[in-house]
Amino acid sequence: MSPFTGSAARTSDWRHLRCSLADGVATVTLARPDKLNALTFGAYADLRDLLAELSRERSVRALVLAGEGRGFCSGGDVDEIIGATLGMDTAQLLDFNRMTGQVVRAVRECPFPVIAAVHGVAAGAGAVLALAADFRVADPTARFSFLFTRVGLSGGDMGAAYLLPRVVGLGHATRLLMLGDPVHAAEAERIGLISRLTDEGEADTAAHALAHRLAEGPALAHAQTKALLTAELDMPLAAAVELDAATQALLMNGEDYAEFHAAFTQKRPPKWRGR
Amino acid sequence: MSPFTGSAARTSDWRHLRCSLADGVATVTLARPDKLNALTFGAYADLRDLLAELSRERSVRALVLAGEGRGFCSGGDVDEIIGATLGMDTAQLLDFNRMTGQVVRAVRECPFPVIAAVHGVAAGAGAVLALAADFRVADPTARFSFLFTRVGLSGGDMGAAYLLPRVVGLGHATRLLMLGDPVHAAEAERIGLISRLTDEGEADTAAHALAHRLAEGPALAHAQTKALLTAELDMPLAAAVELDAATQALLMNGEDYAEFHAAFTQKRPPKWRGR
Amino acid sequence: MSPFTGSAARTSDWRHLRCSLADGVATVTLARPDKLNALTFGAYADLRDLLAELSRERSVRALVLAGEGRGFCSGGDVDEIIGATLGMDTAQLLDFNRMTGQVVRAVRECPFPVIAAVHGVAAGAGAVLALAADFRVADPTARFSFLFTRVGLSGGDMGAAYLLPRVVGLGHATRLLMLGDPVHAAEAERIGLISRLTDEGEADTAAHALAHRLAEGPALAHAQTKALLTAELDMPLAAAVELDAATQALLMNGEDYAEFHAAFTQKRPPKWRGR
Repeated sequence: MSPFTGSAARTSDWRHLRCSLADGVATVTLARPDKLNALTFGAYADLRDLLAELSRERSVRALVLAGEGRGFCSGGDVDEIIGATLGMDTAQLLDFNRMTGQVVRAVRECPFPVIAAVHGVAAGAGAVLALAADFRVADPTARFSFLFTRVGLSGGDMGAAYLLPRVVGLGHATRLLMLGDPVHAAEAERIGLISRLTDEGEADTAAHALAHRLAEGPALAHAQTKALLTAELDMPLAAAVELDAATQALLMNGEDYAEFHAAFTQKRPPKWRGR
Repeated sequence: MSPFTGSAARTSDWRHLRCSLADGVATVTLARPDKLNALTFGAYADLRDLLAELSRERSVRALVLAGEGRGFCSGGDVDEIIGATLGMDTAQLLDFNRMTGQVVRAVRECPFPVIAAVHGVAAGAGAVLALAADFRVADPTARFSFLFTRVGLSGGDMGAAYLLPRVVGLGHATRLLMLGDPVHAAEAERIGLISRLTDEGEADTAAHALAHRLAEGPALAHAQTKALLTAELDMPLAAAVELDAATQALLMNGEDYAEFHAAFTQKRPPKWRGR
Repeated sequence: MSPFTGSAARTSDWRHLRCSLADGVATVTLARPDKLNALTFGAYADLRDLLAELSRERSVRALVLAGEGRGFCSGGDVDEIIGATLGMDTAQLLDFNRMTGQVVRAVRECPFPVIAAVHGVAAGAGAVLALAADFRVADPTARFSFLFTRVGLSGGDMGAAYLLPRVVGLGHATRLLMLGDPVHAAEAERIGLISRLTDEGEADTAAHALAHRLAEGPALAHAQTKALLTAELDMPLAAAVELDAATQALLMNGEDYAEFHAAFTQKRPPKWRGR
């Protein structure tokens, strides 16, 4: 248990998504398959709160985000979100859009790698959730559609106009966000949107295999790698180099670095502690 | 007519380029085919002023930038620009180079998507004009040459050293700007410099088809998508997410978002108003 | 000789690497082939100091960084660096990691293009040295491994978490830095990590040919192109456009720009002076 535990209780029952934890790997499943896992206010709020809870402790070393049924996630529900927001005042609209942005920030800032396991549709907010993940493991049925302009909104939703140019370049990002056309798996791999393309039906299995590999590895090193990748997108070179130096000095005082050297010297595999 | 109209008259006659407007699509043609559309001081100044005029009103919903004749644009004219600048003092040289940079900023900041229709040569300033556009629709004859070092100047001209790494990555950008070698259509597509590759001779037609599709769509959503893509290249993640939230809250109060929901519910296509 | 020469003597004998200079091309060779050119404290310090010395004068117009023997560079020596740092206090660890970062900054900030000639392994710090170069000329045996997490450290070492996303995009960069898996030449070319892929055994020759081409060209134009590419990664668009304008105004007062125009008019090749 973390020494940094306050009075707030852990949530025992997540009603808007499914969550399990085993061997340091958390699996979060969007589980509304009859609606292609369309997101509701509750699902966003649960993602925001769940990631905050999991970030407070060190029991999670990798997280898989998956969708149940025929696809990954079709985005915000047409009735329960689009319809509902039409009746909202400006303060409520801001609150809603800030909440969805908080989910993306939580994915980028949580201290463990997040792996999106994508098959079928990843549309709208579903595409951005996958985009915010550290890895996108996808099978050939995957298709990404940033279809915000199709509903009359900005393609820059939940940080997409920040993240997508940094993943696929400004040219592809402009095309994808402005037009909302689907990007199928082959093109997504070619432009760098997919981290690993699997055989059909294998995205979940491959995502979990990757998560377990990460969870068995030097978790603190992975967490700092992620933190630096996220932070250094927004830093000049000189500051980035200084942050790297401080981070490595810190980790060179850690147990895993010494363990690597001992294991190497003794010609055995290292036993990572994540410290 | 825009309520934000002042005393300045619209220019009725553009002498250094050709401009037409139909169905919300502006077509700007570099029309000096005997010189491969080499740019002159007047052409730069007209591009700067035309984009400023078009940006003031909402009649333009997409703009196609094309070149007449055998190619798109061969860049600054060797005599009328290079020769002429050799006789200039420092203040004049700054004024000239600031003017060319203003054209690029105008392309990036105008409130409608800009589509470069590229065939044949896009060299020097012509390559940067295409690079600054939101879309580069090109046919197999297209070749991009950032040949500034070939005339003894910096490859960072008109924002090229800012834009090109963000479109094709720092490795390719360094090679292209440092050496000035031509990049042919196949490679340009592979590295993300071309948005859409057409059949030979079809770049103009395809660019106009895209422009009309955009013009018939939710123009305010497109304009904000472009504005956010441009702005968020220069913003940290947290600020970008906040800008997205404010933008979506604004657009969720707009007509097009409500129209999407009404059309979806009534199973008919939406009638976009651009509001 | 540069007018900006102070009391500090040039180093006559580099003990931890090999250095030669001919026709404006410096060749720096990591020459510890029995250890796959594993880096030592002395090699890092020599790279730092050598680049500082070479940056003070204008005799170097391009630099090739190569590795002798079976590979380019296997990274920090397991005994002489990893083992040695295990006994260091925090201040020493910071000093070490700042030194390695200074090498990367020196590669990015020296006023001449740096060409990494890569064959075989480029691992750990060796991969980052290649990444920091302006060009990576590699043959099909090249493989890049950012294996920092494999030793329990952050993948963000020596600016890698800053540079790699800007070269190959955030998706590929996350995968490479988090996992430390080798990237072979074909994939490295596909994702933009290789500037030029040569036939087997030809990386050194091709790197030198490129270096001589650059050295015979307009060296000041090349230096400013590099400086702007480096600086504008950290600048907003408006500032980048202004920097470009000032730089071009400066170079338009230079000898090489006038020489280009004279040569063009006289239908002869220009004689570049690098001024």
